[in-house]
Amino acid sequence: MFEELISFCKNRGFVYQSCSLYGGLQGFYDYGPLGVELKNKIKQSWWNEMVKRRSNVFGIDSNIILSDKVLSSSGHLDGFEDVFKDCRNCKSRFRIDEVKDVCLNPKCGSRDFTPEKAFNLMMKVNVGPTEGNYAYLRPETAQGIFINFKNVMDSFSPKLPFGIAQIGKAFRNEVTPKNFILKTREFEQMEMEFFIKPGDNDYYFEQLKEQRKQWWNKQGVEVVFYEQGKDELAHYSKKTTDIMCDFEGTLQELEGIADRQDFDLGSHTKAQSEFDIKAKVKPNTTSIDKLSHFQEKLIPHNIEVSAGVERAFLAILYSAYKKDGDRTVLKLPAHLAPFKAAIVPIVKNKEDIVSCAQGVFDKLQDAGILDVKFELTGNVGKSYAKHDEIGTLYCISVDHESVKDGTLTIRDRDTREQSKISIDKLIELLR
Amino acid sequence: MFEELISFCKNRGFVYQSCSLYGGLQGFYDYGPLGVELKNKIKQSWWNEMVKRRSNVFGIDSNIILSDKVLSSSGHLDGFEDVFKDCRNCKSRFRIDEVKDVCLNPKCGSRDFTPEKAFNLMMKVNVGPTEGNYAYLRPETAQGIFINFKNVMDSFSPKLPFGIAQIGKAFRNEVTPKNFILKTREFEQMEMEFFIKPGDNDYYFEQLKEQRKQWWNKQGVEVVFYEQGKDELAHYSKKTTDIMCDFEGTLQELEGIADRQDFDLGSHTKAQSEFDIKAKVKPNTTSIDKLSHFQEKLIPHNIEVSAGVERAFLAILYSAYKKDGDRTVLKLPAHLAPFKAAIVPIVKNKEDIVSCAQGVFDKLQDAGILDVKFELTGNVGKSYAKHDEIGTLYCISVDHESVKDGTLTIRDRDTREQSKISIDKLIELLR
Repeated sequence: MFEELISFCKNRGFVYQSCSLYGGLQGFYDYGPLGVELKNKIKQSWWNEMVKRRSNVFGIDSNIILSDKVLSSSGHLDGFEDVFKDCRNCKSRFRIDEVKDVCLNPKCGSRDFTPEKAFNLMMKVNVGPTEGNYAYLRPETAQGIFINFKNVMDSFSPKLPFGIAQIGKAFRNEVTPKNFILKTREFEQMEMEFFIKPGDNDYYFEQLKEQRKQWWNKQGVEVVFYEQGKDELAHYSKKTTDIMCDFEGTLQELEGIADRQDFDLGSHTKAQSEFDIKAKVKPNTTSIDKLSHFQEKLIPHNIEVSAGVERAFLAILYSAYKKDGDRTVLKLPAHLAPFKAAIVPIVKNKEDIVSCAQGVFDKLQDAGILDVKFELTGNVGKSYAKHDEIGTLYCISVDHESVKDGTLTIRDRDTREQSKISIDKLIELLR
Repeated sequence: MFEELISFCKNRGFVYQSCSLYGGLQGFYDYGPLGVELKNKIKQSWWNEMVKRRSNVFGIDSNIILSDKVLSSSGHLDGFEDVFKDCRNCKSRFRIDEVKDVCLNPKCGSRDFTPEKAFNLMMKVNVGPTEGNYAYLRPETAQGIFINFKNVMDSFSPKLPFGIAQIGKAFRNEVTPKNFILKTREFEQMEMEFFIKPGDNDYYFEQLKEQRKQWWNKQGVEVVFYEQGKDELAHYSKKTTDIMCDFEGTLQELEGIADRQDFDLGSHTKAQSEFDIKAKVKPNTTSIDKLSHFQEKLIPHNIEVSAGVERAFLAILYSAYKKDGDRTVLKLPAHLAPFKAAIVPIVKNKEDIVSCAQGVFDKLQDAGILDVKFELTGNVGKSYAKHDEIGTLYCISVDHESVKDGTLTIRDRDTREQSKISIDKLIELLR
C-alpha cells in the first residue's frame, strides 16, 4: 500500500523526488500542484486552530538562518549529534542505533564496519562575502520562538499563560533519510510554545495533549499516545508524549508534546543567576536581555507542541486513500480537499454547454470560491474517476438542461449519489 | 517617515531585527504577530490571483536546497557573482558599483581600498554526514520551477500556454544588505513562469505587465514601469520591465517581468542539439530528460514575473501609513488587514458586558471569521487609536444596550463614523 501511495503521489502531482531532472537528491522532495494545495491547507488548519482561534497565542515568522550564539546557548552547537558507522564491504551507512554487528543490506551481511563517528546534524552556511563568518540553518523552528519571547512581550504585554507559534522550514543532516517524506533533511514544522507559571505544567500538558489529539482526528487521522520512559527523555524534558500513527503495522511519530520546564528561556536569558532556574542550563554570557515575565518576575516554563508538516501530509493521505470496489477514492476531510468541486461539461465540443459550464465556474470564482477545477475532458465518467482519486468533494456536471434552465447535477465523492442543484444552492453549499 | 515606519514595525509587532536577543544578525529580519498575518495575506492575494484564478497555472513548492548540477546548468555556479572592495582605513565594505574613489563613510573619506574581489552570492551547505558533499540554498525560486517542468507535464499534460508558480524562501549573500527589509540575505519570492509558443512573447509580456500592475494597485501601491535598456539586460533576457515604487523620492524595484526566451528550459534540457535553441546556453551533459513540450515538440519560451514578498510588505505598509489629524492610521486594503474587526467591551470590570462581548467574538469565530481580536483594555478611545494604527477595519464596541438587546456599535477605521449594527449584519459585512 505504501509503495502504491508513493507512485500515486508522483503520478497525480502531489510529491516529486527533488532534482529528479538531474537524477534526484536523496532525502529531499518537492510538492506538485496538488501537493502544495494539500500542504497549504494542512498548515492553515493548524494555524487556525493554534493561533487564530486562541486569543492568547501569537504567531511569528522568524528567519531560517540563525547565529551561532543562539545555537550555542540552546545546546545545539555541542549536543545535536548523531553517530554513524559504514559497512566496509558495501559502503552502506547506518546510524549506530540502527545496526548492531551485521550489515542490514540483505545482499551484504558483512560484519566489517568503520569506527563510529559523531557529527553535528546542523547545516552550516557562510554569511556575507567574508570567509569564516558562519551561521546555521535552524534545526527546529522553536529557537526562533524563544529568541523572540522578549520582542512579543514588548509589543503586546501578554499575561501568563500565553503562547507563541510558528510554521516554517527546518533542516537536519540526517544520516539515513528514509520512509519517503517521513524523514527528510529539509522539512517543515508547526510548533507552539505555551509559556506558563511554574506549577501549572501538568494541567496545560494534559489540556494540549487532548487538543492536539482532536486536531489530528479532524484531519482524518487516528492517533495514539506514547509516553516516553524516563530513559528516553531528552535532557531538557521532564515529560514527553509522542502522538503516533500506524503506517502498515508500524507506529510512527507525528508530533511531540514536551514539558520543557524552564530550560529554554533559562538557557537564553541574561543574568541567569538572578533567577531560580530549575533546569540544567549552560552559562550564558552573550544574551543581552532578561527573559523573565514583566509582572511575574520569573522565568516562565513552557509546554511545547511540535508537529511535522510532511508527516501530517503523509498520515492524512495514508488515512484517506481508499479502495472502494473498482475505484480509488481519496476521502480527505472537506477542509483539506485540494478542490472543493470540479465543473464538468458533459461534452467538450458543444459551445453552449462549455460556455454555460464556464459561466458556473466564473460565478463560483466571483463568490470567492477559488478551490474549483474546470474539467474539460468531455468524458464524465473519466472526470468522476479522476476527481475521486484526488479527493474533490463534488463533481458538478453541466448538460443541455443546464443551458436551458440552469439546473446542475451534483455528484458526491463519498456516496456517488447524484442530485439536481441550482447555482445559488451550490454557492451556499461550497461556502 | 521611513525611520518612523521602521520603529512602528518594531513597536507594533510587525518586524523585529533577527537574533536581536544576541545583538542582531545583519541583513536578517523576523516577522512578529502582526507581520506574519500581513505577510501571509500578501502571499495569499498573489496566490489567488496568479494560481487559483487561472485554470492554466500550476502551483508547486520545491525544496530550498538545490543540487550543484541544477545550479551549474542554470549558470549560477559560475556567473552569480558580486565584486567588492574594502576601505583600508575604516574597513567598510562596498560593492564596486556603489563606490568610486572615495570611501562613502562620511567620517572617513579615505581613497585607500583593497583590490577588487569577486565572490559567489550563493550560500553553500554540506549535505549528509560526509564532508565535501555540497549543495546550495537556492538564489531564486524559479529554478525549482524549471526542474519540475517535466513532472508537471507528466502529471497534467497541459497545453501551451501554461504557467508554473511558486512562493518561497531564497538566499543571497548580499555584500551590503540595506534599506531595512528591501534588501536582505534571506527573503521570499513570488514567481510565475509562463510557458508559451515562440513568437507569442510580446503578447503575453504586455498582458502580464498590465495584470501585475493591477495587482499592485489592488494592494494599495502606486507603481510605475521602468523598461531596462539594452545595456542593462541580463544575458538571458530579451526584454525586462521592472515594476517600481517610490520610497521617499527614490524609485525601488518591487518586481521584474522578463522575456527569458528559451534560455531556461534550453539550459536544463537533455539533448540540446536536437532543438533549435535561440538563447546562448551552456552545454548540458547531466540532465536526464528532454524539456520540449509533448505536442509541440519544441522548447517553450517563458515570460517570468518575479516579485519580492518583503518588498511588497514594505511598499504596502509605506503606502498605507497615514497621518490623519492627531491620529496615525494604517489604511490597508480590506483583504490585507491583520484584523477585520476588534471586539471592544466599553469597560473591563462589568461581567455582563465582557461576557456579551465574548459571545460576539465566539459567534464570529463559529461563522468562520477568524481575523478578529478581543480587545479588553477597558478604554474605548485607546482601543480605537490602537486599532487604527494596525489597520483593523472595524471596531465593534459592546455596552449596556448590547447586553439588553444585542445592538452593537460599529466604527469605521477610515471615516471614524459610528453606527448601530446587529450581529447577523456584522457577520454578513465581515464575510
